[in-house]
Amino acid sequence: MRALIVETANRLALTDLPEPPLPAGECRVAVKLAGICRTDLELLKGYMGFRGVPGHEFVGVVTQGPDHLQGRRVVGEINVPRDLARYDRPGYDARHDPDRTVLGILQRPGAFAETLTLPAQNLMPVPDSVNDEEAVFAEPLAAALEIFEQVHVPPGERVLVIGDGKLGLLIAQIFAVFGHRVTLHGRHEKKLALAKRWGVQAAIAPAEPARFPLIVEATGSPAGFKAALEQIAPRGTIVLKSTYAPDALPPFDAAKVVVDEIRLIGSRCGRFAPALRLLAQGKADVRSLIDHRKPFAQGVEAFELAAKKGVLKVLIQVA
Amino acid sequence: MRALIVETANRLALTDLPEPPLPAGECRVAVKLAGICRTDLELLKGYMGFRGVPGHEFVGVVTQGPDHLQGRRVVGEINVPRDLARYDRPGYDARHDPDRTVLGILQRPGAFAETLTLPAQNLMPVPDSVNDEEAVFAEPLAAALEIFEQVHVPPGERVLVIGDGKLGLLIAQIFAVFGHRVTLHGRHEKKLALAKRWGVQAAIAPAEPARFPLIVEATGSPAGFKAALEQIAPRGTIVLKSTYAPDALPPFDAAKVVVDEIRLIGSRCGRFAPALRLLAQGKADVRSLIDHRKPFAQGVEAFELAAKKGVLKVLIQVA
Repeated sequence: MRALIVETANRLALTDLPEPPLPAGECRVAVKLAGICRTDLELLKGYMGFRGVPGHEFVGVVTQGPDHLQGRRVVGEINVPRDLARYDRPGYDARHDPDRTVLGILQRPGAFAETLTLPAQNLMPVPDSVNDEEAVFAEPLAAALEIFEQVHVPPGERVLVIGDGKLGLLIAQIFAVFGHRVTLHGRHEKKLALAKRWGVQAAIAPAEPARFPLIVEATGSPAGFKAALEQIAPRGTIVLKSTYAPDALPPFDAAKVVVDEIRLIGSRCGRFAPALRLLAQGKADVRSLIDHRKPFAQGVEAFELAAKKGVLKVLIQVA
Repeated sequence: MRALIVETANRLALTDLPEPPLPAGECRVAVKLAGICRTDLELLKGYMGFRGVPGHEFVGVVTQGPDHLQGRRVVGEINVPRDLARYDRPGYDARHDPDRTVLGILQRPGAFAETLTLPAQNLMPVPDSVNDEEAVFAEPLAAALEIFEQVHVPPGERVLVIGDGKLGLLIAQIFAVFGHRVTLHGRHEKKLALAKRWGVQAAIAPAEPARFPLIVEATGSPAGFKAALEQIAPRGTIVLKSTYAPDALPPFDAAKVVVDEIRLIGSRCGRFAPALRLLAQGKADVRSLIDHRKPFAQGVEAFELAAKKGVLKVLIQVA
């Protein structure tokens, strides 16, 4: 099968690989469409010493699996615990299994390949009303919704999202969908204009910072983290929602965190079911986030494109 | 009146000062007994550029005030908002008023003086069943209880307290009082033995770290913070409960905080009412934390004593 493979840091190639064997209890999925995430770009640069096939945002069709999934169009929860039986919900505690593998990230070949395998419990049929271009956003949308699993957000909360990357934009949009008062600080007029269409108060960071009870740091940069600490209100919550290099963040002002009783919360993957539901209800506008859709043969170029400043989602049409 | 005054960093003197004027709405309190806190030692070393009279743990008697307080033995909430009328409860949101003064810490003379002033709303009569040596712990006990205001702690939770200083010991004790399974990592056999009396599993930090869903960092040191990050379970909460110098903490592993979805929560002052209630119920053993009780004339020596490694609470008998 054809697959995009990270051969070594900063070297990506489209090659022919043997189809992966099908482990007991897993299904084989023919990938249709896959999205390039910031994490993929970090993996290519050497994050976690990654080698192999990246990709964890996908929609595909089950070609080998139990009857209720066979032939179905599916998306998939990317975390696979070693012993699924220990967890009721693959999408929940299993995400933190210390022995887990993670699709396209940790010891499990990813979605930039003609086929991938995942346990049946990880796969979720996509409603007919959700097309491929929407379904491929189930994973990042679930990650955005994870914030609402972790933090109690009262109605009409004032929230600041820092960073107008793909995930920052999506998060700002979802806060707006839920009726919150959202400010987005970014750097790209084009992206800020998109956010404004969703009812987000989007701006280049103003010189005079306001105070927010809730801030989502979605840049992954020391500057973003610093801006969050400067603009958080006493007893406020800062959600760290990005892919950080280890020790990416500078020494922080622990005195301020204590005196102002600030909360910092790391946030990663979320549950797929509510994400698919939002998509099926037509409440989330994910297609506006797509900048390019490239054929698989141009997979390497697609990655180069996705790494350019200001470029939003790049999709790869695998089949 | 006699008062201990920080004249400049690292210089403390017992001097005669004019009695502070009595602002409208405030009461005058004749201080009986005051406790030396780690924050006082940090202020003396230069924290926040402090000058003036330190001291915020006290019990005293109201000598000028409204009828319901006149002559009463009281303790006092240390945060004073600029405009008390904006807050229902002085002990709650007022603690984070951006224009607040703080007794013995921020633009308000403290308790190591024969008299102090505080608004009537800040003062709380001490039940007769609580003696002076217990009442003087109302402030640190309230600070320990603040953790339970901020974090939902399920019954029988496994919690690790790092640091066997005065506050760390008190926090470990309160977790034990509430029926949680408490481990305390410290450095002093004498203090660990004290904690064991309270049912705390106290030890020098073991070579093989376990994982805890809740950790209270009470050392204020980079080593304590590092140990907390190493031992926190996925989705766990680390409470930062100490006086930190700005930038005291090293760059932290944001990738781990995100991937494991860890929470960091700064924690400062708490409400006095539940603290007094616990003391009145005889549930908190604070007197075991007292190492020395010195007359006011030996106030400077009392500070020197309190700064020594391994010394627990030093009280100053002001009157």
